[in-house]
Formats: sequence, structure tokens, C-alpha cells
Amino acid sequence: MKIARPLLAVIESFEKLPGIGPKTAQRLGYYMLHVPQSQLSGFAEALESLKKNTVLCSVCKNVSEGDPCSICEDLGRDGSTIMVVEHPLDVVAFERSGKFSGVYHVLHGSINPLENIGPDELYIEDLFERVREANGSPISEIIIATNPTMEGEATAMYITKEVKDKGLEVRVTRLGRGVPTGAYLEFADETTLNEAFEGRREI
Amino acid sequence: MKIARPLLAVIESFEKLPGIGPKTAQRLGYYMLHVPQSQLSGFAEALESLKKNTVLCSVCKNVSEGDPCSICEDLGRDGSTIMVVEHPLDVVAFERSGKFSGVYHVLHGSINPLENIGPDELYIEDLFERVREANGSPISEIIIATNPTMEGEATAMYITKEVKDKGLEVRVTRLGRGVPTGAYLEFADETTLNEAFEGRREI
Repeated sequence: MKIARPLLAVIESFEKLPGIGPKTAQRLGYYMLHVPQSQLSGFAEALESLKKNTVLCSVCKNVSEGDPCSICEDLGRDGSTIMVVEHPLDVVAFERSGKFSGVYHVLHGSINPLENIGPDELYIEDLFERVREANGSPISEIIIATNPTMEGEATAMYITKEVKDKGLEVRVTRLGRGVPTGAYLEFADETTLNEAFEGRREI
Repeated sequence: MKIARPLLAVIESFEKLPGIGPKTAQRLGYYMLHVPQSQLSGFAEALESLKKNTVLCSVCKNVSEGDPCSICEDLGRDGSTIMVVEHPLDVVAFERSGKFSGVYHVLHGSINPLENIGPDELYIEDLFERVREANGSPISEIIIATNPTMEGEATAMYITKEVKDKGLEVRVTRLGRGVPTGAYLEFADETTLNEAFEGRREI
């Protein structure tokens, strides 16, 4: 059967999104028929202007409305500590926790030889540049907060090595590893338990 | 932390959709930053014109580009048999099965007293009208294909009763009930098993 073309166009657009299969796309498409035109237009408008009205912050490479972004611009934040993350969503997660008051550097990915992503495809060189060119207010610490995956680890190791090789005077740290809050030890994998053991602290 | 406003607008639009929570909406929002502008514009365009370019078929009330819809217009289909369904998606499902060659009637819901949906909120009267006014090519059968839920059953019963009360000369049938293909009897509920037993057929 032929689904009405305008409807099919919406369904197909939804289908292109990650994690949305044909059935869900169809359901969403038909759902859209019941929402007010103003909501449809608002959604359309938001999509249309998304990339036009956002830029990457020239300092930290986070997605932003202005350049520099609101975090880099904020004088209340400690510009001497840079937290290096893979994705803009990681910044959102850390900001939600509210503990960190330094600034960020978004790599936009991690080193992944299988997918042909090397250091040059990421904003790694920009990080070194940032450390090198920090006149007046030097960078004292780089906190590497890449994901605890194989790719994230490789990226962390690469950055650490390069900082040493380039003779940059900055402390490089990595996020603490161990058992996450709320988890059951019973289900933790060996690597996590080993790391929790090694990273134990006096209480 | 403030997420860039254009991005937030997209995330909030996704969040309004059924089955998409805040986390998924956020992920989709950031994902949209990586798709080509042409895809974004296409999606926006599809949403914007969705309701403007579709109508309800005046005959069967299905969502359609033109009026009457492609099914009602199709002379190769048997116009004397009407399958009554709750939603446009049910038409899609039946058309996919390819077995039914009659026409449809979409009620756009089912009788649900708890949500204040009575017969008048649905296209039920239009169905009777359709049977009554079928000059030349009379309707011989109404197949009630509402969902096998409490609301669907109530709707089916209401239609059956009204057809009799109004003295309409048309056969009213209901979809067969029983165990679905591929299911395990072990997990079937009692009502289904009872209905399968009652609906048993000679082989």
C-alpha cells in the first residue's frame, strides 16, 4: 500500500536517526499528524537552524551559540585546569554533576584505527596548542576524561605520551577508576574490581 | 550548564515525542549536528508540510494525499466489503499482509469512557452513512477489525448493535481470534486459549 507521500517523507526522516527502527519511525510519523501545526513548525524551524546558529567554540571546540562559548567566557571558572572529553555530551554530564569548575576541551571522538580515526582527525593538536600558547595564565593540569573503553584509553595514552615528548610543562591526570556508585560488586567485571583495588583510598 | 539554544530547541522538540525520553532526545540532538544540512532541511520541510499536504479521505477517513484516497479510488478493489479499523497504521498492517482486497473505514480511535471518547468522537456514524448511501453497489459485509482490547471490543459491540437497531442490511463479522502464528501455547493467556478452542476448525 502507498502511504501518503508527505507522511512517508516524515517517516523516512525519522528512520535515518540512530536507534529508531522502521516501526518506531512509522509510529512517530502517524503521531505527528495529531500534533498542532505550531509544534510541527517549531520542530522544523529548530532543525533548519540547528547547524546555522551553532558554532564550535574556537577555544574548547564545544558546540556553542557564540565564540568563545559560555564556559570559556566565564571568568569565574578556573582556566588553568582543562578537562579533556570525547564528546559535547560528556561536558553536559560533568556540568550536571556540578563539581568541576575548570574548563573543557572536546576532542570530538577518540583514536580508533579500525575506523581510520587517528589523532589528526581529532582536536588533539589544538589541545597542545592551547597549553603552549597560554600566556599569562598557564595551564597547570590536563584531566583526561575520555571514556574507559579501548579507544578512550588509547587516546589518553597518546595525549600523555605527546605531552611528555613535546616537553609541555603540565600535570596530566586521568579520571579515577573503580566501582560506580549504586552498583553491586557481584556484577562488576574483573578489570573494574582490579582498578578499584589499586585505586583504594584511606578513609 | 547552558546547552546552546538552537541545540536545546531540537532536543526539546524530540523530547515531546512519545517514547523518547530526555536522554534519547539529547543524544538525537547532538547527532543532528553531524548530519548534512540537506538532510536537516529535508526533515524540516517534511515536518512543515506534513499536515498541510495530507487530508482525510472523505470516504474511508484514512490519511491520504488526495481525496478520495488511493484505496477508495482503486476500481480493482471490492467496494462491497468494508474493514473497520481503529487507526491508519492498522490499514498499513493489513495492506502489508496483502490478503484483503476490500476497502477500509478508519474510526480514528475506539470507544473509551475513561478518556471521554464516545461514539460521537469517532467516525462511526460515517460508517453507517456509508452503508446507507451505497447506491448501485451495496455494502454486503462489515469486517470489524478493532483491536482485541476492552475498548476495541466495546467499539465492535456498539457497531454491531447499531447496525441491527438501524435495520441496516449488511453482514457484520469480526476478525478470527485464537493463538497467533509463532507463539508458544505455554505462554498464551486463558482468554486466548478459550477463544482458540471455541474458534477451532476442521482440517
